Amino acid sequence: MSTIRGSGPYAQELMREGKFRHVWRVVGDVSNVSIFDVDTHAELHDILQNLPLFPYMDVKVTPLAEHPRPAGDVRLRVLTAAVN
Amino acid sequence: MSTIRGSGPYAQELMREGKFRHVWRVVGDVSNVSIFDVDTHAELHDILQNLPLFPYMDVKVTPLAEHPRPAGDVRLRVLTAAVN
Amino acid sequence: MSTIRGSGPYAQELMREGKFRHVWRVVGDVSNVSIFDVDTHAELHDILQNLPLFPYMDVKVTPLAEHPRPAGDVRLRVLTAAVN
Amino acid sequence: MSTIRGSGPYAQELMREGKFRHVWRVVGDVSNVSIFDVDTHAELHDILQNLPLFPYMDVKVTPLAEHPRPAGDVRLRVLTAAVN
Amino acid sequence: MSTIRGSGPYAQELMREGKFRHVWRVVGDVSNVSIFDVDTHAELHDILQNLPLFPYMDVKVTPLAEHPRPAGDVRLRVLTAAVN
Amino acid sequence: MSTIRGSGPYAQELMREGKFRHVWRVVGDVSNVSIFDVDTHAELHDILQNLPLFPYMDVKVTPLAEHPRPAGDVRLRVLTAAVN
Amino acid sequence: MSTIRGSGPYAQELMREGKFRHVWRVVGDVSNVSIFDVDTHAELHDILQNLPLFPYMDVKVTPLAEHPRPAGDVRLRVLTAAVN
Amino acid sequence: MSTIRGSGPYAQELMREGKFRHVWRVVGDVSNVSIFDVDTHAELHDILQNLPLFPYMDVKVTPLAEHPRPAGDVRLRVLTAAVN
Amino acid sequence: MSTIRGSGPYAQELMREGKFRHVWRVVGDVSNVSIFDVDTHAELHDILQNLPLFPYMDVKVTPLAEHPRPAGDVRLRVLTAAVN
Amino acid sequence: MSTIRGSGPYAQELMREGKFRHVWRVVGDVSNVSIFDVDTHAELHDILQNLPLFPYMDVKVTPLAEHPRPAGDVRLRVLTAAVN
Repeated sequence: MSTIRGSGPYAQELMREGKFRHVWRVVGDVSNVSIFDVDTHAELHDILQNLPLFPYMDVKVTPLAEHPRPAGDVRLRVLTAAVN
Repeated sequence: MSTIRGSGPYAQELMREGKFRHVWRVVGDVSNVSIFDVDTHAELHDILQNLPLFPYMDVKVTPLAEHPRPAGDVRLRVLTAAVN
Repeated sequence: MSTIRGSGPYAQELMREGKFRHVWRVVGDVSNVSIFDVDTHAELHDILQNLPLFPYMDVKVTPLAEHPRPAGDVRLRVLTAAVN
Repeated sequence: MSTIRGSGPYAQELMREGKFRHVWRVVGDVSNVSIFDVDTHAELHDILQNLPLFPYMDVKVTPLAEHPRPAGDVRLRVLTAAVN
Repeated sequence: MSTIRGSGPYAQELMREGKFRHVWRVVGDVSNVSIFDVDTHAELHDILQNLPLFPYMDVKVTPLAEHPRPAGDVRLRVLTAAVN
Repeated sequence: MSTIRGSGPYAQELMREGKFRHVWRVVGDVSNVSIFDVDTHAELHDILQNLPLFPYMDVKVTPLAEHPRPAGDVRLRVLTAAVN
Repeated sequence: MSTIRGSGPYAQELMREGKFRHVWRVVGDVSNVSIFDVDTHAELHDILQNLPLFPYMDVKVTPLAEHPRPAGDVRLRVLTAAVN
Repeated sequence: MSTIRGSGPYAQELMREGKFRHVWRVVGDVSNVSIFDVDTHAELHDILQNLPLFPYMDVKVTPLAEHPRPAGDVRLRVLTAAVN
Repeated sequence: MSTIRGSGPYAQELMREGKFRHVWRVVGDVSNVSIFDVDTHAELHDILQNLPLFPYMDVKVTPLAEHPRPAGDVRLRVLTAAVN
Repeated sequence: MSTIRGSGPYAQELMREGKFRHVWRVVGDVSNVSIFDVDTHAELHDILQNLPLFPYMDVKVTPLAEHPRPAGDVRLRVLTAAVN
């Protein structure tokens, strides 16, 4: 199951807004590693809940934070990796 | 190990600021269930990293969000349960 | 599955009685973290068993106790976090 | 490690008071299955924390309740199995 | 699923015979902790297999032995906790 | 660690008495699969506890019973596989 | 599920040939511990695959070897415990 | 389920091309250990996704690299063991 | 332990070369989520093995591939997330 | 820990004899995937036990068999993957 394929326009809008920053597929598996950059946990929950395939997804959220050293100009506030 | 006992004044200050909302001890175990209410993941990481016993703690963060129904007047932005 | 949504009036009554103290949703997941404050284990079991969605819930009860330090005036007797 | 052997008089007192109801050893293992009958979670935590070997024990508490059918005259309030 | 409820008379007979010594319900869960006192493993297997709900039960047997210290007059031979 | 090597005479005596029925080594691992045939759980616990290396062993006991079909003349009462 | 019951004649033939050496039932569970003594892994795989209930079995093979000490006259080449 | 049997010609072509280097069956189980030698992760994902039974397979990919010592003339670039 | 802090110049060089694409810290934990973009598994192994703290790190490599849909101009060949 | 590096000549001899067929390193980890082709489990156990680093190795043996389809001329009898 590819949540992105099944939710094309919605995912693209999230990417344009900068809330959906990265997505990779896990090789040999029907799952993705996604990086979201949102303001609050509630916003992330709403984004995930609105995915058309959400009822069939097994999502695991790992709370992430910007790493202070390699940094640069990125100014993330709530950064979360959702593996589904 | 009780992170609160070892870090009394710091924890009390966090409680006064409303960032450290709840703490319960897990019965029969040397661990706590803590509820933090912070603006960003980075802020939570700094709070935890500043605990005197952090190097000896095994922290597991579960991202939480306000539940929309029983609601009321609480206006949380980033709510996170840190079990240590 | 949201046990609260499916059992609105019952949950609200438990909240008014002070037996159902807190509830948060786990981000990206169809589960909640709930804090109950009851007199006995039997009472907690009855409360959970009366939830309309109980037969479909996977409940994990973690026995909690009031933390002696940050305390204040809270006077809990049996405090239990039921994650469902 | 046998928590009972290392804490003889204390355990016997708890048994006389009816708070420490049963204890069995797990065959081939240095652990016990113990049944406690206490009023609150805090009381159980204090009992366990006062065991001389508590710092070296790995305790897992399973919250139990009286079973309504086979019943009889037992009138337990908070019944908890602490495996250590 | 309550194996006891579904097998009332059979369980009561086992209790009268002293083979089924204790039963507690696990709070928030449809499972029990049961203590059997039987002569052989084969006898325990027959008892469990005769439970009407056995085909639907997930039984985990933990071999127990009488604890030598708190002891008294109990004279158990094969004591087994079957959690179902 | 080989419990047998470190406890030669004791293991041989148990084998002569018919209490220690079989032993195999797990390939590539420092552990054995042992089959004991004893009268009670307490007897098995004593046997294991008397092994010179018991304090360093991680024993897992699986309760076994004679299989009724392929049978023959074996008349086991309490048969237990102790993997250490 | 008892693989032996469902495959009586086949299992008995394997026992007569000395390839199927032991079988015990796991108490309270619908599984067996079986000891096979075969020449090659391929032979063991064929034996297991020919069991009528193989498609419904969850087999875990633990590679075993004769233990050099308690020994005697047994001359096993490939000895494998198949738990199903 | 044997992914190879169900996808004979496709697997043979991959073997001729040198991308599918080895395959063993896990004894007593309906799974294989396969060694693939491909240029990129994307190529491996495409190969696996094209297997007729892919939707029913549970694939676990372990990233491997040529071992520098026993070496010889093998010149692998991306070597991956896919257990399905 | 922060592998990046302990290996500043080396990590920065890998970032300039485009081999070390992203790094986030896991909140409340002394671990990072890192995204590497390398040509071969051997190259990734060398990079990780050269980290000054490698002997003390517990690395888990998840093989990733570019997701075909949200695409763009990224042209990754071997993309691997190393969590340490 | 690299069992091969620490046991160079011994491993090379096993390779010449055809008993040690393949070895790959697991990327980012100090472990190998090795394929042994031996006559008996006892032989494999002896080989592993003679590795200089055996006391410090955590070996997991997965019993393998030749796959009947992609076949060819390989004529393995006991084929075992030892991951250490």
